[in-house]
Amino acid sequence: LQKKARGHAPSPQTLPPSLSEALEKKSYKLASRLNHIEDSLVSVNEVVIGGDHRTVIAGPCAVESEGQIMECAAQAKQQGAHILRGGCFKPRSSPYSFQGMGVEGLKLLENAGKEYGLPVVTEVMAIDQVEVVAKHSDLLQVGARNMQNFDLLRALGKAGKPVVLKRGLMATIDEWLSSAEYVMAHGNRDVILCERGIRSFDQSTRNTLDISAVPVVKERSHLPVIVDPSHAAGKWQYILDLSRASFAVGAHGIMIEIHPKPEEALSDGPQSLKFDRFEALMLAVSPWL
Amino acid sequence: LQKKARGHAPSPQTLPPSLSEALEKKSYKLASRLNHIEDSLVSVNEVVIGGDHRTVIAGPCAVESEGQIMECAAQAKQQGAHILRGGCFKPRSSPYSFQGMGVEGLKLLENAGKEYGLPVVTEVMAIDQVEVVAKHSDLLQVGARNMQNFDLLRALGKAGKPVVLKRGLMATIDEWLSSAEYVMAHGNRDVILCERGIRSFDQSTRNTLDISAVPVVKERSHLPVIVDPSHAAGKWQYILDLSRASFAVGAHGIMIEIHPKPEEALSDGPQSLKFDRFEALMLAVSPWL
Amino acid sequence: LQKKARGHAPSPQTLPPSLSEALEKKSYKLASRLNHIEDSLVSVNEVVIGGDHRTVIAGPCAVESEGQIMECAAQAKQQGAHILRGGCFKPRSSPYSFQGMGVEGLKLLENAGKEYGLPVVTEVMAIDQVEVVAKHSDLLQVGARNMQNFDLLRALGKAGKPVVLKRGLMATIDEWLSSAEYVMAHGNRDVILCERGIRSFDQSTRNTLDISAVPVVKERSHLPVIVDPSHAAGKWQYILDLSRASFAVGAHGIMIEIHPKPEEALSDGPQSLKFDRFEALMLAVSPWL
Amino acid sequence: LQKKARGHAPSPQTLPPSLSEALEKKSYKLASRLNHIEDSLVSVNEVVIGGDHRTVIAGPCAVESEGQIMECAAQAKQQGAHILRGGCFKPRSSPYSFQGMGVEGLKLLENAGKEYGLPVVTEVMAIDQVEVVAKHSDLLQVGARNMQNFDLLRALGKAGKPVVLKRGLMATIDEWLSSAEYVMAHGNRDVILCERGIRSFDQSTRNTLDISAVPVVKERSHLPVIVDPSHAAGKWQYILDLSRASFAVGAHGIMIEIHPKPEEALSDGPQSLKFDRFEALMLAVSPWL
Repeated sequence: LQKKARGHAPSPQTLPPSLSEALEKKSYKLASRLNHIEDSLVSVNEVVIGGDHRTVIAGPCAVESEGQIMECAAQAKQQGAHILRGGCFKPRSSPYSFQGMGVEGLKLLENAGKEYGLPVVTEVMAIDQVEVVAKHSDLLQVGARNMQNFDLLRALGKAGKPVVLKRGLMATIDEWLSSAEYVMAHGNRDVILCERGIRSFDQSTRNTLDISAVPVVKERSHLPVIVDPSHAAGKWQYILDLSRASFAVGAHGIMIEIHPKPEEALSDGPQSLKFDRFEALMLAVSPWL
Repeated sequence: LQKKARGHAPSPQTLPPSLSEALEKKSYKLASRLNHIEDSLVSVNEVVIGGDHRTVIAGPCAVESEGQIMECAAQAKQQGAHILRGGCFKPRSSPYSFQGMGVEGLKLLENAGKEYGLPVVTEVMAIDQVEVVAKHSDLLQVGARNMQNFDLLRALGKAGKPVVLKRGLMATIDEWLSSAEYVMAHGNRDVILCERGIRSFDQSTRNTLDISAVPVVKERSHLPVIVDPSHAAGKWQYILDLSRASFAVGAHGIMIEIHPKPEEALSDGPQSLKFDRFEALMLAVSPWL
Repeated sequence: LQKKARGHAPSPQTLPPSLSEALEKKSYKLASRLNHIEDSLVSVNEVVIGGDHRTVIAGPCAVESEGQIMECAAQAKQQGAHILRGGCFKPRSSPYSFQGMGVEGLKLLENAGKEYGLPVVTEVMAIDQVEVVAKHSDLLQVGARNMQNFDLLRALGKAGKPVVLKRGLMATIDEWLSSAEYVMAHGNRDVILCERGIRSFDQSTRNTLDISAVPVVKERSHLPVIVDPSHAAGKWQYILDLSRASFAVGAHGIMIEIHPKPEEALSDGPQSLKFDRFEALMLAVSPWL
Repeated sequence: LQKKARGHAPSPQTLPPSLSEALEKKSYKLASRLNHIEDSLVSVNEVVIGGDHRTVIAGPCAVESEGQIMECAAQAKQQGAHILRGGCFKPRSSPYSFQGMGVEGLKLLENAGKEYGLPVVTEVMAIDQVEVVAKHSDLLQVGARNMQNFDLLRALGKAGKPVVLKRGLMATIDEWLSSAEYVMAHGNRDVILCERGIRSFDQSTRNTLDISAVPVVKERSHLPVIVDPSHAAGKWQYILDLSRASFAVGAHGIMIEIHPKPEEALSDGPQSLKFDRFEALMLAVSPWL
């Protein structure tokens, strides 16, 4: 019963001819299921992402202080998350908003991960940050707004660390896979895709989680695909349900924002989970883990 | 474990003050959670929709012949579906496409339902069809394109049968609830909402399933809400995953298109499930049923 | 100079082969440029719409009283508008909003039109209104929310009066032309298309005027196409500019909401022009008239 | 008559209180009309953009050879365009598409501009290109996909040359102005906004030109705003009409792709105008110039 609920589909053995034909016309090759029929696995220290593995990434939107990131790391570990997130260089639509702690934050994040035995992931926004971020972080995230920052993608081909590539707010699935292709074609095969909601006309949620993107990506590509329900929903109360839905459609993982005191968060407070709510979420998704 | 996977949230006992305040400003009253704090239950013969109940509606896009609808009814019954669907008056974008079998189809659908002990649901497109459709069908469906056909909604207030109200392709959630309000304010409290995908920019799927609409609706309204993954995806291969996701976010049911020979269907063949695929779907969603 | 600014393109003499090939695959035939290479002209009493003619329709969102519609008619006539608009059956998203004056409003509108020598246009929302609306109004309007109310479209094929068909908020151009085909295939060739804005993600305007729909429609169809900048913008201050743009891309006309006291309007006040602003608009578009 | 068609609205003398109040809540300050009530003028050599000036930028999508850019420059000059465009670093969704001639192209563009007395504009995609692009080009363009590449925007604050900031395919107008604010807050007040179409559901045009963005921007900001109908439409046959519409709503300029042989272009051939069609366009917009 549990197995059915988990819904792990095995890697395909062969592709249907109609799919092969469709994939042959795509502009991406290395990212295509056509050229790598089995699911790819991406290793981050001892955590494996992809295939039958199911991964939870948790942490604050932004690293704000040593105490805050340590508390989050302790909580992530305790609840069974596998990877710690925390933004250091923050892409903010206004130049007057908090822009992140930068390199200082990177060090705090790295230490927190080490303290609790969790690999860490953080966003890299510019080519000249790649080296320092790759030094302190186990995974490098490309944000939605940079999904087609092609020079950054090229540079990440040489970064030597796996990349989490978020889907742009208005990117088609094929454009997203073509951006993965940039990283891969420049030398880095370890790319994890992350669906985080697209823009649409209803303002009930911050963005619209395109849940069917997960099976579509899994059909066209062998790369792992995870979901970020926090940015999709923008409101904490929908995140547990959307996490369950993410695993239900076969996502390889979820990325969740948590904060000891969301009402005091320097960014994205309304979508951050208090620790007890994160505990409830982990319980709710436990059948899939 | 199973219970966790099913994720049945009980009806709320009280509403958070911030939600109450938000709901007070809405233009819908009867449909609002504010005025009916517990989940509503809608009874269709012996089938109950809403609350802790989980319902599967299955059948062909359109009734095409006696043999076809009988085969579908037998399969629906055998796999454990609760209600039989089948279109008789078909809203087609072209006047030259198959427009449905009309009243003749209604009778075939009614007979198939009786033969297999399944209540039936079919679409009503115009006021002058309400009487005859209500005579032969247990549930009356309003299609996405008619979600704001206000005169039809008014007429359905007097139909004496429960209504399935599909969300328009471009309707906000509040507009959708306001359309439900039309039916309710004109005398019919038995409204079931059906999310069926919205329009967006990526053509990988026919429409974009707005999965977060389910928890948003459940927060704002006491009415049952179901999902139609067939019209959302438009391609059979994504429907099993999206069905699982629908239950995972707490939908009260799903509506699935099946056909003995999808490649010969007069409408919506590509999104119709063959019987063996429907069997696999029912197995996959069984933890929630 | 003036002629260049007006930009009246003559009807094409022949179609480019690539266009012919594309049009052959469309599901609309009677509405297609392929089957009627010259621009169609629609006559409404002595007003001709289409081809080289440029038409201004003006009036209140809704008929509210005899005084109000008479004032608007006087102003429309004085400023050189050709047709008087005024809603009598109003499609409102909430059942508790003002629903229009109905048949009483129709009579007031008809009288105001006769008093000032202006043909009138008003919306018809349901089949059972077609006869009475056709009796009192010279043009029958189908609203955006009813663009795919196929039973209504069929009924309008027999209405004996020209139809203004608004584009749905989420309708593709081909779906819009297919809806026109419904009216035409059921006996009424006098269809005027009206672009009124589509839904998108930016809330700066009520809807997003899809200005390029005008040249796209004129390429694919011989039917007249007009623009309703009032509903597209939703704010009076953008309407003059958008009216100019509409004529600049070759629209055959514009439909403008005016009101003697917009701040007291029962519907759509924010997008209604005061009379002096309408005068300024008519001066601004005069090079095209 | 001509003056009316041109529709140059003078800079406002005062702002309506409701607008002031709305602008006070925005996150952009330097870009806001609130803080600079008169239209800003941006000078590029002897060309002035903004206020009452109307500017035409023309050239190929990408610089492909010396001969090609020289031909385009000669044509641009002859038809009265004011600035020469030509891409050297090309943002392409696939890593296998033509990526531009890079620095070699920059030099060809610069020479062509000098030969014909036209300032030049080209795209800069990454921080490490800013210096070399600023050396050879008079205006630096930020592409739609980089609108929220905040590190690039910061670097452009120090570039010493005016910036053309294209709107992202899914950016709200306020996000777009906030991106301008990044450039301005980091030292560069010479920002020109460029509307180039947003994404929507109809595939008749490559993107949907949001024509009402022009009056909305002019209300909220003092910065010049131009339109790129070539990328919006994606098809040459709609570009003349959309150019006229751009000036009709008050845009300060247009940016047009031309090519001696569009069918042989290495990028964006279908939206590039042959020289005789560009001549027709310049004639059509001449009342505004």
